[in-house]
Amino acid sequence: MAPLAHQLASDTLETRHTKEWLRDYQRVRAATERLCAPLHREDYMVQSMPDVSPPKWHIAHVSWFFEAFLLIPFLKDYRSLDPAYDFLFNSYYETHGTPFPRPERGVISRPTVDDVYRYRAHVDEAMARLLEAPPVEHVDEIRRRVELGLHHEQQHQELLVMDIKHILAQNPLCPVYRDDLRDDLATSPAATPGELAWLNYPAGVRLIGHESATGSFAYDNEMPRHRQFVEAFELADRPVTNGEFLAFIRDGGYRRPDHWLADGWQRVKDEAWTAPLYWVQRDDGWYHMTLGGLVPVDEHAPVCHVSFYEADAYARWSGARLPSEAEWEVAAEGVDIHGNFVENDHLQPVAKATDGAAPGRLYGDVWEWTGSAYRPYPGFRTLPGSLGEYNGKFMSGQMVLRGGCCATPRSHIRASYRNFFPPQARWAFSGLRLARDA
Amino acid sequence: MAPLAHQLASDTLETRHTKEWLRDYQRVRAATERLCAPLHREDYMVQSMPDVSPPKWHIAHVSWFFEAFLLIPFLKDYRSLDPAYDFLFNSYYETHGTPFPRPERGVISRPTVDDVYRYRAHVDEAMARLLEAPPVEHVDEIRRRVELGLHHEQQHQELLVMDIKHILAQNPLCPVYRDDLRDDLATSPAATPGELAWLNYPAGVRLIGHESATGSFAYDNEMPRHRQFVEAFELADRPVTNGEFLAFIRDGGYRRPDHWLADGWQRVKDEAWTAPLYWVQRDDGWYHMTLGGLVPVDEHAPVCHVSFYEADAYARWSGARLPSEAEWEVAAEGVDIHGNFVENDHLQPVAKATDGAAPGRLYGDVWEWTGSAYRPYPGFRTLPGSLGEYNGKFMSGQMVLRGGCCATPRSHIRASYRNFFPPQARWAFSGLRLARDA
Amino acid sequence: MAPLAHQLASDTLETRHTKEWLRDYQRVRAATERLCAPLHREDYMVQSMPDVSPPKWHIAHVSWFFEAFLLIPFLKDYRSLDPAYDFLFNSYYETHGTPFPRPERGVISRPTVDDVYRYRAHVDEAMARLLEAPPVEHVDEIRRRVELGLHHEQQHQELLVMDIKHILAQNPLCPVYRDDLRDDLATSPAATPGELAWLNYPAGVRLIGHESATGSFAYDNEMPRHRQFVEAFELADRPVTNGEFLAFIRDGGYRRPDHWLADGWQRVKDEAWTAPLYWVQRDDGWYHMTLGGLVPVDEHAPVCHVSFYEADAYARWSGARLPSEAEWEVAAEGVDIHGNFVENDHLQPVAKATDGAAPGRLYGDVWEWTGSAYRPYPGFRTLPGSLGEYNGKFMSGQMVLRGGCCATPRSHIRASYRNFFPPQARWAFSGLRLARDA
Amino acid sequence: MAPLAHQLASDTLETRHTKEWLRDYQRVRAATERLCAPLHREDYMVQSMPDVSPPKWHIAHVSWFFEAFLLIPFLKDYRSLDPAYDFLFNSYYETHGTPFPRPERGVISRPTVDDVYRYRAHVDEAMARLLEAPPVEHVDEIRRRVELGLHHEQQHQELLVMDIKHILAQNPLCPVYRDDLRDDLATSPAATPGELAWLNYPAGVRLIGHESATGSFAYDNEMPRHRQFVEAFELADRPVTNGEFLAFIRDGGYRRPDHWLADGWQRVKDEAWTAPLYWVQRDDGWYHMTLGGLVPVDEHAPVCHVSFYEADAYARWSGARLPSEAEWEVAAEGVDIHGNFVENDHLQPVAKATDGAAPGRLYGDVWEWTGSAYRPYPGFRTLPGSLGEYNGKFMSGQMVLRGGCCATPRSHIRASYRNFFPPQARWAFSGLRLARDA
Repeated sequence: MAPLAHQLASDTLETRHTKEWLRDYQRVRAATERLCAPLHREDYMVQSMPDVSPPKWHIAHVSWFFEAFLLIPFLKDYRSLDPAYDFLFNSYYETHGTPFPRPERGVISRPTVDDVYRYRAHVDEAMARLLEAPPVEHVDEIRRRVELGLHHEQQHQELLVMDIKHILAQNPLCPVYRDDLRDDLATSPAATPGELAWLNYPAGVRLIGHESATGSFAYDNEMPRHRQFVEAFELADRPVTNGEFLAFIRDGGYRRPDHWLADGWQRVKDEAWTAPLYWVQRDDGWYHMTLGGLVPVDEHAPVCHVSFYEADAYARWSGARLPSEAEWEVAAEGVDIHGNFVENDHLQPVAKATDGAAPGRLYGDVWEWTGSAYRPYPGFRTLPGSLGEYNGKFMSGQMVLRGGCCATPRSHIRASYRNFFPPQARWAFSGLRLARDA
Repeated sequence: MAPLAHQLASDTLETRHTKEWLRDYQRVRAATERLCAPLHREDYMVQSMPDVSPPKWHIAHVSWFFEAFLLIPFLKDYRSLDPAYDFLFNSYYETHGTPFPRPERGVISRPTVDDVYRYRAHVDEAMARLLEAPPVEHVDEIRRRVELGLHHEQQHQELLVMDIKHILAQNPLCPVYRDDLRDDLATSPAATPGELAWLNYPAGVRLIGHESATGSFAYDNEMPRHRQFVEAFELADRPVTNGEFLAFIRDGGYRRPDHWLADGWQRVKDEAWTAPLYWVQRDDGWYHMTLGGLVPVDEHAPVCHVSFYEADAYARWSGARLPSEAEWEVAAEGVDIHGNFVENDHLQPVAKATDGAAPGRLYGDVWEWTGSAYRPYPGFRTLPGSLGEYNGKFMSGQMVLRGGCCATPRSHIRASYRNFFPPQARWAFSGLRLARDA
Repeated sequence: MAPLAHQLASDTLETRHTKEWLRDYQRVRAATERLCAPLHREDYMVQSMPDVSPPKWHIAHVSWFFEAFLLIPFLKDYRSLDPAYDFLFNSYYETHGTPFPRPERGVISRPTVDDVYRYRAHVDEAMARLLEAPPVEHVDEIRRRVELGLHHEQQHQELLVMDIKHILAQNPLCPVYRDDLRDDLATSPAATPGELAWLNYPAGVRLIGHESATGSFAYDNEMPRHRQFVEAFELADRPVTNGEFLAFIRDGGYRRPDHWLADGWQRVKDEAWTAPLYWVQRDDGWYHMTLGGLVPVDEHAPVCHVSFYEADAYARWSGARLPSEAEWEVAAEGVDIHGNFVENDHLQPVAKATDGAAPGRLYGDVWEWTGSAYRPYPGFRTLPGSLGEYNGKFMSGQMVLRGGCCATPRSHIRASYRNFFPPQARWAFSGLRLARDA
Repeated sequence: MAPLAHQLASDTLETRHTKEWLRDYQRVRAATERLCAPLHREDYMVQSMPDVSPPKWHIAHVSWFFEAFLLIPFLKDYRSLDPAYDFLFNSYYETHGTPFPRPERGVISRPTVDDVYRYRAHVDEAMARLLEAPPVEHVDEIRRRVELGLHHEQQHQELLVMDIKHILAQNPLCPVYRDDLRDDLATSPAATPGELAWLNYPAGVRLIGHESATGSFAYDNEMPRHRQFVEAFELADRPVTNGEFLAFIRDGGYRRPDHWLADGWQRVKDEAWTAPLYWVQRDDGWYHMTLGGLVPVDEHAPVCHVSFYEADAYARWSGARLPSEAEWEVAAEGVDIHGNFVENDHLQPVAKATDGAAPGRLYGDVWEWTGSAYRPYPGFRTLPGSLGEYNGKFMSGQMVLRGGCCATPRSHIRASYRNFFPPQARWAFSGLRLARDA
């Protein structure tokens, strides 16, 4: 997907030959399949909690997206492999028909994994025909939808990594996604981030959100670019580390209600939280499940798999707070996008020495919880038709995260990107960075 | 509590003799008891859902507040009537000891209602002693806490009205809180609000929140006063009426998912919502439960007992949106506080002809849902000690409402007041006013 | 109700003047009111769990029974006080109209306790008119229904005691039902039951159930009298004591799955059972809640408030088993009915020295769990009409208990009486007696 | 497994050479694999409700049984493939270690299906070694356990068929287990059972249960043979048919509470039952899911997939009742075991003309619900050790069914066989036969 990233700065799809669209399409689709390559058919079937989807469903659903929004409307004589797929693999588009109930995705054994790959190939073959000769009168809309469909597929690549991790972690046998990841985690060189430093940002009216006139891709929820007054603030130069979070645990952080939002404290009690998700305490210290198996917690790596409630409680305990999403975006202005992404193939946040970049490590490793509820920007407009359900209807009960993580494709992230999860969610690669009033 | 309202504009408690504090104290306390006067002992016992507290608990809890935060710390030789009350009537102050579980408040028959009124009198007698001769070294803190305690009690007055309505509404006998309310609703003169008109507000940096330097009272969550950039917007000159909401219902509003946030649509299905809470359809039209019994819905009165989800869906259906809390506060600047409050003793939103005020009816009748999630203002600081739990810990999962309602004491409301409820809550007197981008 | 008991052996209601029916009626009704005399209005309102009914509901429901099944069908010109009562106070007679949902009985504050007593008086006055001059053509049916209504009311007297105990026990203030009960429990003379002895019963075909030809009262579920083959068995001469049950607890009884039925073990884990209901361990030993407050467990008294699962587990641990209901009835043949009943006014099982009766203490103190599921006898017929719902429809998912308890009216019990509760129920005065194969 | 069936009448395993044990072992094990042959790997993974186990789990668990109870105790130098399997594939033997939580069997993707078949082969190879040269001092115990293990595996064969049917039925694509079954159901000759006839049985003391002295196999719960007095009764000569059950449905059977036990009526309302499980009403009549897909309901075939509650309600509606298990066993005395079993390979109850056998069709087609709760026989003893958990601990909350079904291996059933399910269970092949008092 590098071309798309490149294109962000230079040109737009509009100016490129549709052959390139097909190349992009094929690159993104191949990346999904590479992520699934280590899976057994049995792994493809598991729904380990209602929020997790079976990998089989993911690879079918992302194909359905192209079928429902491109092939059926725009490819003459397109024939669906099975009309029931339209019901089975619709995620949540209510205006497109009643979706199959999400928590029951794991009880559907047919179509099999092979069937679903056949469906995928069928869609790919038809998409190739469409993109090689798109009907002239729809070429703009097709371009827009292909672009959206590829970003949609990249989102599901990240979800696949999160979900596969959760699925394997339920298993008392502690299975490993890929053996080489275990070695990767064991042999990564010791890296010590420095003491946390604070960067200053002055008060002022700032422009927040994606500028649609650039022509580069962004989701509807990142627009329109608009003014916000941001008070002076300070931002930490790096995310909170496992070692720092351990100090919170050792100080009784999970036992003292005064650190917590009321809803968070209720979760701590109801679900008996005592550490981030996937952490296990043994006689010789803390371990956590990774895609490379159960390994010791690296004190220098960014803390991960904490909920918003835990991030918020840690921040309060440390005398700081979470940044707002506007503060984060102000800090990200002009910062290059590099970091630990899915292409780095660690699939885990890793320790890294501070390298003088300020702020450091904004991108990759862990999604950073902000203190901002996920609500529409002033002037927000949804996309027309069923695609209008893409983002807008989830704008309640969720918090915004910024910056991408170790499972995010590099070309999928940008400064204005607004990810969102419910405040109790922990299975995403989610961590935090501190802020404070100036 | 009129003096406190008066004082908002002219002087501050600091300059007044403590004798006046006692008079204020007694006025507010008496108002609580007046609200409970029509209740039978049996009514005092009911917890009709976990969010509702038995009226007995309310009248005990507000007394406990004075005992825990004033009498025990500051009144020499104060003796509690029963040490167990400290556990039973603590609402949610975790740092003050483990509170009795909220959903089980309705299973506690002892202390009886008479016992609780004795407790109330015991606290009142001790408060009189404290306020007549407060220890000099604590006089400022005492003043602050008395003021907070009285505003706290006023909040519970409003909750009492909401909860009593919910309690009586469960009963298939449709009991009436006070017979004269039925007559009041029947005989109120027909009033027709005009066509909805839009008021314009220009873009700019605005000051939002309470200015603490005024010395007048506000909760911690209204501070500090700070700058926000507010884009140009338009605001309706009055709340949405029952008649307008009926058009939404008749247009299939509760059956079409595209109007709704995803969480809201889930509620519609799970709880089979087809109209606002308390509404009942009969052959000859819609009725709703009021504190004066089951009466026909008045098409000209503001719609009430809608959740945030319903308010948001209505706004989307009508091509508008909810205002942000900053927009609401901008519009409220300089607007006099008058309207249908608890002192008007309708205990129900009522129809009123548009009177040229612009915007009209900002205060009273119905709390107006805003589109803003309840989060801290930049620079927010909680109160020290257990009182720090007053507001801050609820800053997740809730939406802000503005303007007070027909159950709010007149002196309790102000432009910067931030009420909050979860988006699904419907038993508050909650309605909406439309906004749109300029 | 002594006359009814007397009549069991000698005559039948059929031969008595209806004036005597009225006297019986008034005696039973007065007993209900005596049990409620110590209650505050607030106590009347509480539903501490779905199985418990508010005392107010009990006293209304037993009146409704007479109204629905006697006054409305048989008393000319009878006028109900309020037609809604027929809905509110119908317990479970589906063929009589939809009953008000049981778990919501506690949210109905009106009619008030005073209203309900007025309703009660209204029914009593009408019943007096009916019984003084019953219509000749219905006199037999009226007699049958009065008798059933009085036994029904006696059942509710026992439920009232159980429910009041449960209601007060939820309260952290440990309120006392009657102060003199505390003294009664403190001053009862030390009584040591002897070592448990076994009584032998030979095998053979036995007649089980109530002989309807005697004309004395029994519920439909005790009939018809029929033959069962009962293998030779041994029965303990007294119930299991608290001291014996403590040995089970100390031996890890609540921690070892092999003692338990699978469903029982699930309950032990899910509800964290470690002792009978109402037991609390303190530094100086075990206490339990009684209607006289929290008092030390008397090792010599029969163990009480155990579920079927606990009774069964104790029996298995001790190398014995529970008796079948037929075995219990064989043993009860010819045994006089005396024991610790509600008239003894302990309202708690008490220690008693073995007095040579064999088997001892079959009646009173604690209902004895049997190993028999509650199913119809061969040839069972329900009563006609709505009264057919009295017993038969509960014949699944419950176990039979025999012998009455300290809250049972003396005249309500008999050898053939089949009480029943779900196997997990613990709030009845339920204990056990051991049996084993000969 | 024919030899075992043959042996029931003639000889016992004790007299046979251990080589024959191995042949029996291999025959039973092969039958399990034949049932799984049509499955895809994905089908093996699904747990469609907590009561259903993934087929992968079944085939592993039955192997674990031989490993845990035979190989580890008796085969010198036996090495387990993976010690974790002992935890993962233990069903409910608490005394053998904490079993893996049943409702989470579907989230375990590893070991894969191939791994599990390797485990199966590993166990089979070791079992062959054990059975070829069993240690002389344990030969009796080994024989007993092999026999139990094979009957255990046959039970799981039946569960596999039930569970596979349930798994496939969740899928909106209506997948078919085997295509030829669809043809089988379509082409089976029309067969009309005659009018229901009643057979008479006189009253008397009967011997019930399995006679252990015969040496033939039975579960512990069928013993000891003991005396019961059985009143005179009548039994229908065949099961209730779909056509007869349709008359109940058409007569409003699912809408009238007076037909139902209270618990059953609650289920009808809570789960919106309107017909047996798997039935679907279309414009042209009733269809039901079978392992051959969705086919029209055959009015002449026995009704199937009804709960105890539905069976009981039907019987009450028809003026009859369910037989007790003793009555069923009395009727079965001397009746040959033939019928529609798993070997007939219909995997569905089928219509059959009455053939003069009286009572007809006692065995096969559908398990017949009896009116007897599943409780121990007088004198019941569990097996020693962990195998004591096999049957006894489930003796609460369940009802007995008799006679086997279309998924039962022919050699697995006998007159004394006591199957049991909770009264609400519907996914077994369960139907009913009427009885009435003589």
